[in-house]
Amino acid sequence: MRAHKILVLHGPNLNQLGIRQPEIYGHETLDDINSRLFEKAAVNGWDITCLQSNHEGDLIDAIHAARTDGTGLIVINPAAYTHTSVAILDALNAYEGGVIEVHLSNIHKRESFRHHSYVSRRADGVIAGLGSRGYLLALDTLS
Amino acid sequence: MRAHKILVLHGPNLNQLGIRQPEIYGHETLDDINSRLFEKAAVNGWDITCLQSNHEGDLIDAIHAARTDGTGLIVINPAAYTHTSVAILDALNAYEGGVIEVHLSNIHKRESFRHHSYVSRRADGVIAGLGSRGYLLALDTLS
Amino acid sequence: MRAHKILVLHGPNLNQLGIRQPEIYGHETLDDINSRLFEKAAVNGWDITCLQSNHEGDLIDAIHAARTDGTGLIVINPAAYTHTSVAILDALNAYEGGVIEVHLSNIHKRESFRHHSYVSRRADGVIAGLGSRGYLLALDTLS
Amino acid sequence: MRAHKILVLHGPNLNQLGIRQPEIYGHETLDDINSRLFEKAAVNGWDITCLQSNHEGDLIDAIHAARTDGTGLIVINPAAYTHTSVAILDALNAYEGGVIEVHLSNIHKRESFRHHSYVSRRADGVIAGLGSRGYLLALDTLS
Amino acid sequence: MRAHKILVLHGPNLNQLGIRQPEIYGHETLDDINSRLFEKAAVNGWDITCLQSNHEGDLIDAIHAARTDGTGLIVINPAAYTHTSVAILDALNAYEGGVIEVHLSNIHKRESFRHHSYVSRRADGVIAGLGSRGYLLALDTLS
Amino acid sequence: MRAHKILVLHGPNLNQLGIRQPEIYGHETLDDINSRLFEKAAVNGWDITCLQSNHEGDLIDAIHAARTDGTGLIVINPAAYTHTSVAILDALNAYEGGVIEVHLSNIHKRESFRHHSYVSRRADGVIAGLGSRGYLLALDTLS
Amino acid sequence: MRAHKILVLHGPNLNQLGIRQPEIYGHETLDDINSRLFEKAAVNGWDITCLQSNHEGDLIDAIHAARTDGTGLIVINPAAYTHTSVAILDALNAYEGGVIEVHLSNIHKRESFRHHSYVSRRADGVIAGLGSRGYLLALDTLS
Amino acid sequence: MRAHKILVLHGPNLNQLGIRQPEIYGHETLDDINSRLFEKAAVNGWDITCLQSNHEGDLIDAIHAARTDGTGLIVINPAAYTHTSVAILDALNAYEGGVIEVHLSNIHKRESFRHHSYVSRRADGVIAGLGSRGYLLALDTLS
Amino acid sequence: MRAHKILVLHGPNLNQLGIRQPEIYGHETLDDINSRLFEKAAVNGWDITCLQSNHEGDLIDAIHAARTDGTGLIVINPAAYTHTSVAILDALNAYEGGVIEVHLSNIHKRESFRHHSYVSRRADGVIAGLGSRGYLLALDTLS
Amino acid sequence: MRAHKILVLHGPNLNQLGIRQPEIYGHETLDDINSRLFEKAAVNGWDITCLQSNHEGDLIDAIHAARTDGTGLIVINPAAYTHTSVAILDALNAYEGGVIEVHLSNIHKRESFRHHSYVSRRADGVIAGLGSRGYLLALDTLS
Amino acid sequence: MRAHKILVLHGPNLNQLGIRQPEIYGHETLDDINSRLFEKAAVNGWDITCLQSNHEGDLIDAIHAARTDGTGLIVINPAAYTHTSVAILDALNAYEGGVIEVHLSNIHKRESFRHHSYVSRRADGVIAGLGSRGYLLALDTLS
Amino acid sequence: MRAHKILVLHGPNLNQLGIRQPEIYGHETLDDINSRLFEKAAVNGWDITCLQSNHEGDLIDAIHAARTDGTGLIVINPAAYTHTSVAILDALNAYEGGVIEVHLSNIHKRESFRHHSYVSRRADGVIAGLGSRGYLLALDTLS
Repeated sequence: MRAHKILVLHGPNLNQLGIRQPEIYGHETLDDINSRLFEKAAVNGWDITCLQSNHEGDLIDAIHAARTDGTGLIVINPAAYTHTSVAILDALNAYEGGVIEVHLSNIHKRESFRHHSYVSRRADGVIAGLGSRGYLLALDTLS
Repeated sequence: MRAHKILVLHGPNLNQLGIRQPEIYGHETLDDINSRLFEKAAVNGWDITCLQSNHEGDLIDAIHAARTDGTGLIVINPAAYTHTSVAILDALNAYEGGVIEVHLSNIHKRESFRHHSYVSRRADGVIAGLGSRGYLLALDTLS
Repeated sequence: MRAHKILVLHGPNLNQLGIRQPEIYGHETLDDINSRLFEKAAVNGWDITCLQSNHEGDLIDAIHAARTDGTGLIVINPAAYTHTSVAILDALNAYEGGVIEVHLSNIHKRESFRHHSYVSRRADGVIAGLGSRGYLLALDTLS
Repeated sequence: MRAHKILVLHGPNLNQLGIRQPEIYGHETLDDINSRLFEKAAVNGWDITCLQSNHEGDLIDAIHAARTDGTGLIVINPAAYTHTSVAILDALNAYEGGVIEVHLSNIHKRESFRHHSYVSRRADGVIAGLGSRGYLLALDTLS
Repeated sequence: MRAHKILVLHGPNLNQLGIRQPEIYGHETLDDINSRLFEKAAVNGWDITCLQSNHEGDLIDAIHAARTDGTGLIVINPAAYTHTSVAILDALNAYEGGVIEVHLSNIHKRESFRHHSYVSRRADGVIAGLGSRGYLLALDTLS
Repeated sequence: MRAHKILVLHGPNLNQLGIRQPEIYGHETLDDINSRLFEKAAVNGWDITCLQSNHEGDLIDAIHAARTDGTGLIVINPAAYTHTSVAILDALNAYEGGVIEVHLSNIHKRESFRHHSYVSRRADGVIAGLGSRGYLLALDTLS
Repeated sequence: MRAHKILVLHGPNLNQLGIRQPEIYGHETLDDINSRLFEKAAVNGWDITCLQSNHEGDLIDAIHAARTDGTGLIVINPAAYTHTSVAILDALNAYEGGVIEVHLSNIHKRESFRHHSYVSRRADGVIAGLGSRGYLLALDTLS
Repeated sequence: MRAHKILVLHGPNLNQLGIRQPEIYGHETLDDINSRLFEKAAVNGWDITCLQSNHEGDLIDAIHAARTDGTGLIVINPAAYTHTSVAILDALNAYEGGVIEVHLSNIHKRESFRHHSYVSRRADGVIAGLGSRGYLLALDTLS
Repeated sequence: MRAHKILVLHGPNLNQLGIRQPEIYGHETLDDINSRLFEKAAVNGWDITCLQSNHEGDLIDAIHAARTDGTGLIVINPAAYTHTSVAILDALNAYEGGVIEVHLSNIHKRESFRHHSYVSRRADGVIAGLGSRGYLLALDTLS
Repeated sequence: MRAHKILVLHGPNLNQLGIRQPEIYGHETLDDINSRLFEKAAVNGWDITCLQSNHEGDLIDAIHAARTDGTGLIVINPAAYTHTSVAILDALNAYEGGVIEVHLSNIHKRESFRHHSYVSRRADGVIAGLGSRGYLLALDTLS
Repeated sequence: MRAHKILVLHGPNLNQLGIRQPEIYGHETLDDINSRLFEKAAVNGWDITCLQSNHEGDLIDAIHAARTDGTGLIVINPAAYTHTSVAILDALNAYEGGVIEVHLSNIHKRESFRHHSYVSRRADGVIAGLGSRGYLLALDTLS
Repeated sequence: MRAHKILVLHGPNLNQLGIRQPEIYGHETLDDINSRLFEKAAVNGWDITCLQSNHEGDLIDAIHAARTDGTGLIVINPAAYTHTSVAILDALNAYEGGVIEVHLSNIHKRESFRHHSYVSRRADGVIAGLGSRGYLLALDTLS
């Protein structure tokens, strides 16, 4: 898998990272994570875009855009939409590049409704439970 | 069922038609379909509006508007929201005109989570698997 | 889909149409419907055969016959056998022409055991809830 | 539970109240309900905000805002999103004040898919079936 | 419930009564049972017809005939079709007289797939486990 | 089945017969039913006892007593306990005489939780949907 | 809903309130709660009766009595019987006044077998998770 | 197991063998298979009858006949009726000779609704996935 | 676990022990069992009370009493209430001493509805299938 | 299917054959069966190896070895591992020769947990219920 | 039940007792438990063997050996294999002596996948939740 | 997470890597993967052990050993045992270091029985679908 243009999508409530339920998600903020991603991309000469939205439709729009703007890899943490959004799955099905699904926590250790992922039906790889490091490992699939 | 004002709603990802998974959905674009619908409406002297959105809320707003603007028929392809949106069902429940649900593919031949439709609980009729012709047949219920 | 020889199959109890539960199925008789189908076929120069049977085996026999007599389209309302007949599904699986499944009522609004269709696993298209008009729309797929 | 700043959230389709299915929801409009809430808040010297949206993301955004603007109580009628939105549940999980879930109708008397609530996993209290009075009783938990 | 013309329907395999699995069904033959029914009908001046068939379609045809020939009561032991025939249920749904469902054995004491009856959704009354006497008690509902 | 001492047990809420939901249960009171049972028993020279209780334990106690006082037939309408009482089933399992289960309405036409009967696992016969006549038919198994 | 005679029913184990699992139910005793209810009734000139029982049959008997003694509102906390008693549901179905179901804790946050309520199928309103205040709010539906 | 009179039953659609879905069922016709069976029977001096029907009732009738005509072994490929026919199971339950169930394909590799067999509850042996050879192996149980 | 005051609770139908289904429960009567328990208690200087009731409420009342009278161990055979009584579970949840659940038979070898125990959610220990010896072993946990 | 090197695998507990539950498995020992297999192989000039193990891993190892040693047919009776071993399924998935699954008894007549086979997802053919003859018939697929 | 030769089987991970999750299993080691068992056997003149293995096959082998070496009682704590091993169940089914299943913790209080035991289908008795004392009580069934 | 001693466990059939189903698992052999792991460990100065076994018990034994030999990280690909082994889960529960679960393929895209993992209930992190790179990324959690 080779890609130089990367889209990182953060799903609903991830703008609250570092604040919301730190016992589950840790103290890092979304800005902290994005900074680390930008830094890694800079080192590698990659073009990276990070987007967070609480709106299912916005995430779909962004995936559509990636289909034609040369994006070769989407790293997506669909958060709550992991479990409920067929629409995001369909959008990813229409995308032809690589897709890595990332979850900060190990969703299999939480409530049973969090064990099922629509996005996993399309993702090339899934990384869960490794905190924000999961995003960085997802980028490592490029090197 | 008589109606002269028609609303055609296209759900999430349908803006990618002709591009996304042509082996399932064919090569026609959404513009191609809308053109055929406008043409048929023109021939019959019908007032037709076509709207596509990836946002569940936008589709709901459009259904609300149809309740009071004289729209007598809603033709809706809810796409992925077919299977997950109680909110669209509720919006249609509040609408008193005719409702025809259209699916391009035969959803019963696909993954099992696509076999259930919330919208079918309200739709007067359902047409599936006939490609874009399904929309035209839905309009035929007016003549 | 092009076809000039058409088989219309009406499943069990449809010979009671216009009599049985008109609040669900309307007042039209099966003869009324067949007349409209013959009329439409005549206008279009199509060769159409209509068969009703309460016997699962008779419907299977008819589908087998269609396999070799040049029938290009089967329009089938399997009625109660929709939900219980793997044998009709298998017969249709052996047929290579087009198959349109028609239901007078929207089966998704009725008892839950009527929501599942074996025939939909084979049908090219499904039309439900449009009353006898559904049969006519099924023929429209030929033009 | 003590709070002087209150957020009242009305979910999808509630803007149609008084119009949509009055046999279930009654003839009162959302404005009527909000007026009664403002009136009660004025009498008690409470600061109250009412928001309705058909967009899941808007409701999430509003809950996030409440986390830091001193809101001590969220009264939420999630309507259709009650049954489908893990994202709203996650947003409420990140909020530390009181949460009262209100339903106009007794959802347990309706279709079975309306019996399950994601929001109830977080709500401190749930009031259902008491019509618009439910909102007022929810405020009574403050006095 | 008043009726003078009665149809008694015996479902598949009941022609084997007295032979097949006597430990479940006893040693009486179907002719024995029919004789007792004719005798009782003669005493009461009732017109009674008894029909056994292993063909689902034959049973449906007989129910259709009863709809218009003045039959006021159908006593039916659907045997194996109890559990699988939506088509017989639909035929009975189209019949407007009284319907009593009879089972020789108590089906609730046998394999779990015998616990569900489609016919019970339409039957006015159900009598099970009383052997051939169940048919006679069904006729008693006429007196 | 021969018995000259009979126990008729009426389960919870049956003391409200004739009052409670007459559209389901009719206008006859429990006294009316018991009178007809006493009358029939008198004609046949049978010894009959009728007991109604809203207490599961009282019904169990009565079944235990019947085990040793010469009662040869228990006719039981377990009402709501039909669906929830393993304890009544166990009491009947310890009784060696005949057991006929009676339901006024056809429980298979009502809510799904009323379709299952623990008592049917022990009953020799089951009569449902024939109103109070069901009790009389149950006694007919003695003659 | 207007009522001047009120019956408050406390189900099994509620006599242990203030003692049993205070981390779930708080430190208030049932007498404390009843005192507050009597006080509120006195202020409003209402006639209120409070009854606690661990016996399902006693609660049913009390509901039957309420049917004819002029009771206009039953406030019931069915406790454990919420989840298992069809008999209490049937008793309430026979009662024609208002019914408010109250739970001290939010049952939807506890074990899954506590998520289902038979009583909710009949209750006009349901209040859960507001502690003993729930009873007082239930009375507020009278004013 | 000793038998000299054999009945081979072919269920619905097997008359289409060699034609229908050869990728699943192969190119042999039913006549080819029957010829091989007759040949083997001739070599061994067995009396063999082969019957194919698309009618469930015909298959039941044939099993009944075998009960009294000295047939010692039934080899049955119930095809689609494998999964849906309680009536054929009941007919076989009344038959006292040997029963071998044969499937051309390994039904456990196909759609999940084909994994369950009513006939297996009665069959002495089951052979699946060995194509037409399965019939011959079934006869080998005689030698 | 140390206790000198013991409550032994026998659930519904256990008063029929030695009589009811001896092939499952043996020939010992409840008095026989209680005698052995009293004997063992006497030897050890323990204060033991044995109570049998067919009334769920009586068992609950007894558990409540044990909460405050110094009882350090409850040995309970809930019999049929094992599987249906949330109320007994709740009563035991409010008790702070030791709880041993005893079943005479191995309930896992019987009907599937007997495999689930509400009481096991609270019991410290469970002993099943060892007949009346199970009660004695339960007391051995004291020594 | 042509093969001259055959591996016969017997799963756990089959070393107890002839001893363990003869009412299900018969009196033949595993040595008896293997002797008959060797004899048949000798007659046909085949190279046959028989292995029994109670260890899942040993069976997997043997399948791996067969992958490269020229074995053309594996006949496997996975016994209890039929129902629980994904690992054996995976080993067989990696093997490219023929696979015939054999069961001595008809597993579909036994406990429901024995109805499902992981191995059937890979087996070319399945033979059940024919006792040790099943192994011999499996070899017949070679001739 | 009389036995003088006893086999005690400890399933997977029990060699970690006293180390692994002491909050569930306590601080006693397996050697401590075995010492207490040997001591009790010595006092009673019993011949006892204790075996622990993490290998399912080893446990099966040991059960097979017990079948013929005069072992009259197997006390088995199958640990994780309780829930997954049909093979151990089958081995025990072939053993004719007494079988007591022991669990240190009350498995019904843990994750739901630990609530089901294959071994309980064969065990004569089950003791759970009494810690290592459970093994000693199991031996008491000998005296 | 800091660790200098690492155990890499490869579950059943992984010794067939590069051979078995390359369309799912790729052409790399297990030796190839281990070489890359040793290389990475050498560069970082880590002490790494790699073990493959087809025996569940061997994997458990290895986990136990890791508990006391200073191993700080277990990287485990449980392969087929992922879905069936409670025993491996229990062994990992007794281990206190870090645990990363790796799957070569995205198990969520395969048969449904492969979607559930017992090991995920204990793993700190899960990496799936990234081929052998997943192992290397798992080691990256150390740096």
